[in-house]
Amino acid sequence: MVGASTTEGKIGYEAMENVHDYGGRVYPVNPSGEGEVFGEPFVASIGDVDEAVDLALLCVPAPVVPSVIEECGEADVGGAVIYAGGFAEAGDEGEELQEEIAETANEHGVALLGPNTSGFVIPGAGIHASFATGVEEVPAGGTAVVAQSGGVAHSLAFQATRERRGLSAMVGLGNRANVGFEEVIEYFDDDPETGSIILHVEGTDDARSLLETCYASETPVFAYKVGQADVGDFAESHTGALTGDHALYTAGFSQYGVPVVDSTSQLLDAGHVAATNPLPDGTNVGVVTAQAGPGIIIADRLKQAGVSLPTLEDETMETVNDILPGITYAANPVDTGRPMPEFGDVVRAVAEDENVDAVVVYELHEAALGFPTEAVDGLAEEVGKPVVFASAGAESLLADDRAELEGAGVPVFETPERAADALVALAEYADVRANAAPAGVVGDE
Amino acid sequence: MVGASTTEGKIGYEAMENVHDYGGRVYPVNPSGEGEVFGEPFVASIGDVDEAVDLALLCVPAPVVPSVIEECGEADVGGAVIYAGGFAEAGDEGEELQEEIAETANEHGVALLGPNTSGFVIPGAGIHASFATGVEEVPAGGTAVVAQSGGVAHSLAFQATRERRGLSAMVGLGNRANVGFEEVIEYFDDDPETGSIILHVEGTDDARSLLETCYASETPVFAYKVGQADVGDFAESHTGALTGDHALYTAGFSQYGVPVVDSTSQLLDAGHVAATNPLPDGTNVGVVTAQAGPGIIIADRLKQAGVSLPTLEDETMETVNDILPGITYAANPVDTGRPMPEFGDVVRAVAEDENVDAVVVYELHEAALGFPTEAVDGLAEEVGKPVVFASAGAESLLADDRAELEGAGVPVFETPERAADALVALAEYADVRANAAPAGVVGDE
Repeated sequence: MVGASTTEGKIGYEAMENVHDYGGRVYPVNPSGEGEVFGEPFVASIGDVDEAVDLALLCVPAPVVPSVIEECGEADVGGAVIYAGGFAEAGDEGEELQEEIAETANEHGVALLGPNTSGFVIPGAGIHASFATGVEEVPAGGTAVVAQSGGVAHSLAFQATRERRGLSAMVGLGNRANVGFEEVIEYFDDDPETGSIILHVEGTDDARSLLETCYASETPVFAYKVGQADVGDFAESHTGALTGDHALYTAGFSQYGVPVVDSTSQLLDAGHVAATNPLPDGTNVGVVTAQAGPGIIIADRLKQAGVSLPTLEDETMETVNDILPGITYAANPVDTGRPMPEFGDVVRAVAEDENVDAVVVYELHEAALGFPTEAVDGLAEEVGKPVVFASAGAESLLADDRAELEGAGVPVFETPERAADALVALAEYADVRANAAPAGVVGDE
Repeated sequence: MVGASTTEGKIGYEAMENVHDYGGRVYPVNPSGEGEVFGEPFVASIGDVDEAVDLALLCVPAPVVPSVIEECGEADVGGAVIYAGGFAEAGDEGEELQEEIAETANEHGVALLGPNTSGFVIPGAGIHASFATGVEEVPAGGTAVVAQSGGVAHSLAFQATRERRGLSAMVGLGNRANVGFEEVIEYFDDDPETGSIILHVEGTDDARSLLETCYASETPVFAYKVGQADVGDFAESHTGALTGDHALYTAGFSQYGVPVVDSTSQLLDAGHVAATNPLPDGTNVGVVTAQAGPGIIIADRLKQAGVSLPTLEDETMETVNDILPGITYAANPVDTGRPMPEFGDVVRAVAEDENVDAVVVYELHEAALGFPTEAVDGLAEEVGKPVVFASAGAESLLADDRAELEGAGVPVFETPERAADALVALAEYADVRANAAPAGVVGDE
């Protein structure tokens, strides 16, 4: 930790607080450091560390960065995170500075995250290489967050945390001096802990290379491309990247098998379902609802996005009608009127329907009934399709039942729209992967 | 409470549980009821109640409803909630039954909520006339939820509750036998507790009348019109209403001064800001961000929706540059780089800018800094513009600071998109009210 500090609020203190409880050794590096910080004695320079260093975290201002990277190279450090701004995002001089450190790093084989990033977090490994407070609360899980902006990376990670969803990693790329989307996507595609990769993209100089990497990924990738309106100036001032042509990116992503979503929430939601549930084989969704109104919202939302609600098989309809004679609406959506003890059997019947590739369920929570956790536990794996719920209720009554349902691997969304939008992204994944035809569309010369 | 029951899980029990702690008297009515329920002794019929009855809650099946409404009329009951389904949503016979009860109710001047609704809640008055569990946790506040579907009404109410936002009322209209959107909107427009009215609309036979009522409302009204795709069959099976022509509704709402939103979340968010903050005079938004990435998302989202980010006044730019020399991006958005102690002063400078009609702020929570609550307390009222925040962070570190900020009347959103979308709806309100020109557009003969 280069630039470690004992002054609370300073990046060198906050980052030290986040990283000090990592299982391996952590060395606070500061030539003017005296004594220790978080129980670790200061060393004067990276050269003074008495063992091989895997990772250097640089909490030093931009002008000092080149010499520290040089030191990292000489000490055979594997990688370095550069938190400081003042590089490619800050005009010509900054751009030169960034080229200089990239050259040094490349010579010595040092992988650089940043500059101008708030870092990365691997919750499952206890690595909190970020200076943001609270990152140690992000739970481990299956989605890798890869954001061009460190701020967005953290925003996504904390949203996930609030909604009890785990991440395999959170990475803020920043200016991408020598590690870009490609290297990170390839890494997480090979990572056994990662079941989905979600991208926040402002813009990149080599869109073709990004798209080809996404196409080659066996792990599903979802993208949120920001910059549909003209925010070019502001974006360039940010991570030194132009936002580029939004329509071209969107078309390119689709062509290379990457669904494009419309918000941070939809990005997280799609990633969460893809990481915890089987992927759908097609774009046909079965809807089961215990309350018609939210069911209509879901059906409307799915249809607007071009996702189909297929007719259910005769066998399914018979099963549903046996369970619920005189049911309110025994088609697709299946509207059970109110929840009842057999609600889980209805969900199961629809999930087993051959016409259906994915299932979304809406059920207001009723304390006396709870959720049909037993009936749907293992259902998604059994039928090889995603099965998701949306619900609402008083938190004090709902929380335990929801934890059980989520514990059985069923994502539970807070609004009907978010459940629908997540399945739209997954249906689109089935669609764009089936029709992906990488060709000279984007960035071709 | 007609049809009150001692059997847990039955509507007549759940509704009784929700209503029994109301400040006034509650009489459980059931000819076969013995003893008492929730401490109240059963009476055999409404006629046996020994004082004037303001409201009857009918937890009885459809075939019994006509005779109970007759009884209500004879006992001069003011209004009745009919929870049962099996009326206009259930085919010709049901439609006749509904006409019959409407006729009886009209004769005797009984206002009917429903049939086919889960009821209503007035948190501030302690009235929980719903059979859904947990409605007593909905906090009192300034937004009136008026939903065509009882399920959506509850979904909205519980979403609001989870996000610590109060409601002046939650009403599920159901089949609207003799109380429709018009009566309820007029009521809440006159209600001193209500600062905004949010509508969930599937469809209505007399769109013109609904639009004219909205136009006449001095309280801002926002609408979520469901049924953009073809979900007509399912919707008709629901509240007996056709979803109608979506484009006509949307155009109609705009023309009559009602912004149309795209989701339950945006509906709640718009209503919450309108109920707690001054309305904007125009469509110019100032953006202040402590992290560029989420700021770009907000700017992009606003611009896509046609909301403008005006150039700030010279005076504002000078103030901002005085506070933060060498600031990352001292235009609109103002990007402060990271939060710092003067962050609140920057927000204040932008809010005071004459070119700006509304302010949205993004700030990842940092434990050492908290939020600039002191600087923004009372700011919205002072400048006569809405001022909203979006943030993210670890709940354990964030919750207290957020509660303080919200306590100062500042809405705090969970994602950058939701803050932006709320202000889009408010900017649209300024725009459509300024340009409202009610005319023979919808439902004209």
